[in-house]
Parts: sequence; C-alpha cells; structure tokens
Amino acid sequence: MKTRPLSLVSAFALAICVVPAWAADPLPSWNDTATKKAIITFVESVTTKGSPDFVPPAERIATFDNDGTLWSEKPVYFQLIFAIDRVKALAPQHPEWKDQEPFASLLKGDLEAALAGGEKAVAEIVMATHAGMTTEEFEKMGKEWIATARHPQTKRLYTEMVYQPMLEFLAYLRANGFKTFIVSGGGIEFMRPWTEAVYGIPPEQVVGSSIKTRFEMRDDGPVLVRLPEMNFVDDKEGKPIGIHSHIGRRPIAAFGNSDGDLQMLKWTAAGSGPRFCLLVHHTDAQREWAYDRHSHVGRLDAALDQAWQRGWTIVDMKRDWRIVYPAQR
Amino acid sequence: MKTRPLSLVSAFALAICVVPAWAADPLPSWNDTATKKAIITFVESVTTKGSPDFVPPAERIATFDNDGTLWSEKPVYFQLIFAIDRVKALAPQHPEWKDQEPFASLLKGDLEAALAGGEKAVAEIVMATHAGMTTEEFEKMGKEWIATARHPQTKRLYTEMVYQPMLEFLAYLRANGFKTFIVSGGGIEFMRPWTEAVYGIPPEQVVGSSIKTRFEMRDDGPVLVRLPEMNFVDDKEGKPIGIHSHIGRRPIAAFGNSDGDLQMLKWTAAGSGPRFCLLVHHTDAQREWAYDRHSHVGRLDAALDQAWQRGWTIVDMKRDWRIVYPAQR
Repeated sequence: MKTRPLSLVSAFALAICVVPAWAADPLPSWNDTATKKAIITFVESVTTKGSPDFVPPAERIATFDNDGTLWSEKPVYFQLIFAIDRVKALAPQHPEWKDQEPFASLLKGDLEAALAGGEKAVAEIVMATHAGMTTEEFEKMGKEWIATARHPQTKRLYTEMVYQPMLEFLAYLRANGFKTFIVSGGGIEFMRPWTEAVYGIPPEQVVGSSIKTRFEMRDDGPVLVRLPEMNFVDDKEGKPIGIHSHIGRRPIAAFGNSDGDLQMLKWTAAGSGPRFCLLVHHTDAQREWAYDRHSHVGRLDAALDQAWQRGWTIVDMKRDWRIVYPAQR
Repeated sequence: MKTRPLSLVSAFALAICVVPAWAADPLPSWNDTATKKAIITFVESVTTKGSPDFVPPAERIATFDNDGTLWSEKPVYFQLIFAIDRVKALAPQHPEWKDQEPFASLLKGDLEAALAGGEKAVAEIVMATHAGMTTEEFEKMGKEWIATARHPQTKRLYTEMVYQPMLEFLAYLRANGFKTFIVSGGGIEFMRPWTEAVYGIPPEQVVGSSIKTRFEMRDDGPVLVRLPEMNFVDDKEGKPIGIHSHIGRRPIAAFGNSDGDLQMLKWTAAGSGPRFCLLVHHTDAQREWAYDRHSHVGRLDAALDQAWQRGWTIVDMKRDWRIVYPAQR
C-alpha cells in the first residue's frame, strides 16, 4: 500500500527531471546517413559533462547563413524578388523609370536584362526600394510582402520554402543550450520581422547587410530614416567581421551553402576546441534545385573544395533529407 | 492516510511553481524611496499576467549606458585611463611622441594639456593605442589591464567601481525575464571581455563604439586586424541607431546618466505600451562624485530638464543608494 503514493511522486519527479528532451528522434526529417550522425555526435560531445569536448552553454554559439542554407534562393534571392515587387508598386510615382535601366527592363519583366548591369544594377534597385522611409515603414512593407507574396514556381509563401530539416536542426541545437544566430548577406531589416516566428531566432540574433540610418526628431516623435548608402556588407570577408561586431565571440558551429560563407567557416574552424562546419549542397533538382560551381546565385566552388580538404560536413540534400519543405499550411 | 502522500506531492509542486523568485528584497542596496518603488512597480506591471501593461518576455528589452550608469567615470572615462597607460607602455617604441601632442603632455603626466586638443586629441590617443593589432591581441591587453590597473583615487580595481545597486537592478530585471543590454559610447571591444563576469551581460548583448576591422588570412589562420578608422560612434543620436542595428527592437526600459543618453531615452519612451526611463544623478560627493550640468565628463543638462518635464525617474545617488560600490574582495 505504501508503494502506490510513492510511485506517484516518483512518476512526477521523472516527468520533470529525467525524461530527456530528445527521447524521440530530434531530426525526423533527416535520413539516417553519416551527415545526421555527424550532427548528433558533435552536439552530444559538446554537451556531455565530463567530456573532453564539453563547451559551457554561454559559448555554444552557432551561426547560420540564410539564403540557400535555411530557405531556397532560386531563381534569385527572395529579397531581390521583394525589391522587384517594390519597383512595380513604386513605378507610377517614377515615370522616368520607363527609360532608365535597370528599372525599364524590370518593368518589362526582363529580369536578365535588368541584372546585366551586375552589382551596380542590384544596388540601384535596392536603394530605390529599401531607402527613403523610416525603419518602421520599411518593416511594415516587408511584413506585408512576406505574408502574401508567393514564389513564381512553387506558388508557396516564401516562408513555406524554408527547409524542414534545418528547422529541426535549429530547434535541436537550442534544446541543447546553443544560441542560434543568422549571419546572412541579406538585409538585416528584411529578415528580422519574421525570423522569430519562422526560425525561432529573435531579431537581436540576426546579423545581415545594412544601409545607414539617421536619427530624426519629428513632431510626432523620433524616427530612424533609412538612407541610400551602404553601411555594411555581411558577405564573404564581411561575415567574420559581422560575427565579431554583433556577437563578439567566435562560433563553435557554422552552417552555409556557398562561397560567400567560406570566410565564416574558416573563422569558426580556426577557434580552439571542438568545431562543426557544415555546407548544404543543393543536389536535388526534383524537390528543390541542383547547383554548385557554375550557379550565379549561391555559387559553391572554392568552399566545396575546402570542405573536402578540411573534412567539413557536407549535406547532400537529395540523399540526406527525407523531406525538404514543411507541410503546407 | 491518503492525505499524507498527496500533500507531499503538493509540497513538491509548490516548491517548484509557487515560491516567488524574489520573496526577499531584490534590491537590498536601494533605500526605500520613491525611486525603488518606481522600479518595482514597473517590473511588476509588465510581468503580471493579465495586467493591461503585461509585456511578453521576448519584448522585455532593457538597455543600460555604462560610464556613469553602471560604473564611475571620474576623473575621466576609465577607457581613457587604459589608453593613457597604453601610451606609456608603447612610448619606448615611439621616440617621436616626446615632441608630438597630445602624447608629449600625456607622457609628462599633464592630462589637461593633452586633452586641450579636444576630440581630435582623444581620437589620436585612441587610434594610437586601440588599432594596429588583431582583435585577439587587443582583447588580451584589455583583460590584463582590467585585472590589474587601479583607480588613482580609490585604489580600487575599476571593476570594483561598479555600482552595487545597479548590479542588483540588472539581476532583478533578468530574474523577471528581461534581456539586459549595455549601450555605451565606450569601445565595444574594450567592454566585452569583462561584462559577463562583472554585470552578467554576455558579449552579444554589448553595444558600443567601434573602429573598423579587416579580415586577413595569415599563415597561422584567419585574423581580424583593428584599423585606425572609426566605424561607429555609439553616443547621442548613435544610441538609437546602435540599438536598432544590434538589437532590432525598441527597448521598453532604458537607463543613463548624461546628455549622451538623451536620444536613447527618447527613442525608448516613444514606443507604445509601458515604458521606463531612468537617469542616475551623481549627487554624492562623499561616496562617489557630485556633478551634472557643468561637468566635462558625463554632462547631465538637457537630459535632466527632459527627465523633469517627462516624469522620468531620477536616481538621487546620495538619497537612493544605501551603498555605492560592492564590498571589496
């Protein structure tokens, strides 16, 4: 008769203290390949107390590229599609764009001609659409677009083109005491309004490219005005700089998919103690896209060679991922 | 006979769920004045579920100035004393400094003459001592200095000149789900190596002024080299910009002590919902320093007027603080 109430207490204690957070498979959308094993082995080694590789929670910093690593990036970066949609919306206020590149080609629907001007053309499109308003106004635009715009091919919302295996990976890391950051070449203010809902990453853990802002006292209160001038490019050499500036310590794990992530991975790998560097290799033309060395968007060339040489983990999307996108809502 | 085991369970549940985190006084170094009451009232109002002022934990962002708000700043900013100590250490490698201001006066011990050149002189001292090395080398210098250098008057370590009431305040906010940030005009890389141990604020929650860095691949690995060029001045109008850039959302509470904090406080106050703005007024010439409108360091003039007009909370250091510095170790 004594055992029953005691077992009640024990069961209660068990429920609170003993059942491991990830008794079930923490990565159900990952096939049981060497890649999945490498992830789990790393996480267990840095979180097991007494392990020679144990890392205190405060130092468990993991940085993720966004375009091509957490969500798709084809046919072009989704932020560029946002910018093009903004050009179309603003066109009535800019009759001069009809005869002015890259806007003229964009408005005719000829993306290739519009982008023929290279980085200069992209910069013009970005400045025309991302500057000249307050930070609050820009946030509102971005939120409206991300809630309604759909991908030309999949017809999904862009936030439905995030990778389900990576969502599980993010959650698995956080459940193991990691602090997860985005470190993306994309615009910091374009990403922040939705990263918390979609990835579980709050705005203060998003690092990205930015334009300058100016503080202004207006009659109805202070505002920050977005200026048509680059502040910081968070790509290539910019990624370690952005990490150092925003996070102030070196990650122990970094995740990317292109040559733009190479310096971040090198910076991460160069720290002492256990390190985990991973590249997502787009190998699945059926379910997503297949591209690497010759792609204009998300080129993976030098970084692929480095990954092979240094033994970094490479996700073969076709082989390693059971599913790619989350079930549509 | 049934009640006993049940009450065991209840007691267990109680121990986990019901005892409030701050059953004892969370702010023992604060006298029981209106200031302390204002702090507690604000925190309770935003953390009480069902209260009209309830704020979800993710949005409980609190930003603290450092110099004069979390630690002392007299006779000059402590980082300037660090820079002067570096000038002395580097002098043998710079024989030209003997005839070159501001270095010549500094090396003669005449701080006033050295600083007669104003901001330009300070910038020259900073660039000569804060640039030209890797970020790791600079961190090592800063750590050694902060661990050993002592204040000329109090003979304390500088980290022993932090304000005990503010340490309690930081801990009280965090225990109530706040994320605490430093937003300081001081150098971000000067502060980060010690803010976690001293304030419980990790490097990624420190916002400050910075110089530019360059990523370099060296034979023994990648480094970031500190360049003699300003990147960002996190003071006055810079504070809302730094907050927006690093945190990406508006604080609901902000704490400062000088006119350099005014824009941060205005930016914070302009958000919707409950807000808490507080200024530390240095009124205690006995235990610390007494200064405001006419001080060269930490001038509090326009912000004091604004605080009165807007009903911001003003800490009267002499009246509100039971003790100023922590007991010496």
